Amino acid sequence: MTPEDRDPKQWNRKTQRSPAAHMIITPRRPLVEFMDVIRQRRSIRKYRPDPVLQEDIEYVLEAARLAPSWANSQCWHFVIVNDPQVKKAVAQAGNSWTAQAPVLVVACAHPTRPGTKGDQQYYMLDIGIAMEHLILAAADRGLGTCWIGAFKEEVVKKALGVPESMRVVAFTPLGYPAESPRPQQRKALNQIASSNRYEAR
Amino acid sequence: MTPEDRDPKQWNRKTQRSPAAHMIITPRRPLVEFMDVIRQRRSIRKYRPDPVLQEDIEYVLEAARLAPSWANSQCWHFVIVNDPQVKKAVAQAGNSWTAQAPVLVVACAHPTRPGTKGDQQYYMLDIGIAMEHLILAAADRGLGTCWIGAFKEEVVKKALGVPESMRVVAFTPLGYPAESPRPQQRKALNQIASSNRYEAR
Repeated sequence: MTPEDRDPKQWNRKTQRSPAAHMIITPRRPLVEFMDVIRQRRSIRKYRPDPVLQEDIEYVLEAARLAPSWANSQCWHFVIVNDPQVKKAVAQAGNSWTAQAPVLVVACAHPTRPGTKGDQQYYMLDIGIAMEHLILAAADRGLGTCWIGAFKEEVVKKALGVPESMRVVAFTPLGYPAESPRPQQRKALNQIASSNRYEAR
Repeated sequence: MTPEDRDPKQWNRKTQRSPAAHMIITPRRPLVEFMDVIRQRRSIRKYRPDPVLQEDIEYVLEAARLAPSWANSQCWHFVIVNDPQVKKAVAQAGNSWTAQAPVLVVACAHPTRPGTKGDQQYYMLDIGIAMEHLILAAADRGLGTCWIGAFKEEVVKKALGVPESMRVVAFTPLGYPAESPRPQQRKALNQIASSNRYEAR
């Protein structure tokens, strides 16, 4: 028996991620269909302390790296925070509960590198795309995340040494979920879409 | 022989989408892993004239509908354009080549319904997330798309009757690809990410 086997908190995790359980289809994990990832993603606010595997961090970053962007400008930079002191400093910017997660991922963007259309900030759109790739890839790996948009940007900038030229747009905790929240309510399809003409319901 | 069988342009499509070809795994199509969707998505600029199945349109809208947003505000509205005259009017706003696609999807957003952080426009981030869900879901179904951000917003607003209170942020053609472009170059992982501190390479 290893020390891990003696810790009941580890049992579920071991069962879920045991290689034997999913070796039938792939040596890593069962195939998850794209739409199942979309359906199963939740905002997770409680995390297990287990560290996130380095290969999983690289997996979610790879998904962000491949994201499309305005004229392929790739205006983004992601800071992976797992140092407890740094994590605490970031979490203090507005959502201190996020410090319980083993990792925080902070999304920065260059505000003028993408193009602009009138007053619309396309860097916000581009970082939204790339960060959501990361968040969906995390769900695909059984990792929880939670979009955090409301925080004091200057606090995060100082904690991570983000240069003046860059903006901090959002961050997310990343780790194995310790809760299974229900899906959020969404508007019906006919409330968010119409044919050939804008028609709100 | 049906008229479709006599049209050589239809043969590839029939082969690709024949029920027999993928019935081994599922009656609809083979399972596609999440990361394969991320890897296989391309900006498609040439489309076959074949109409898009209604169920595929509902599938991509469903992916958008389930997207997360600031305080679940779901500030979006999508207009599905397949009427040739309306399509032409939208395409004339900036990317007339898009009119060759059987469908255009226009993404509108309410600019103040999501929250704001300082000067950052979170509606741009939210519509980026939802539209990218739609674009990835299209790739999952073998449908091509292409983010279009540079166009005359007022022209699209007029063509679709979009109310003053809403913004048109982006649109995409939607249809079966008539080209197979190579993947775009992307920055290396160590150029877009660092640990515990912002470090650009």
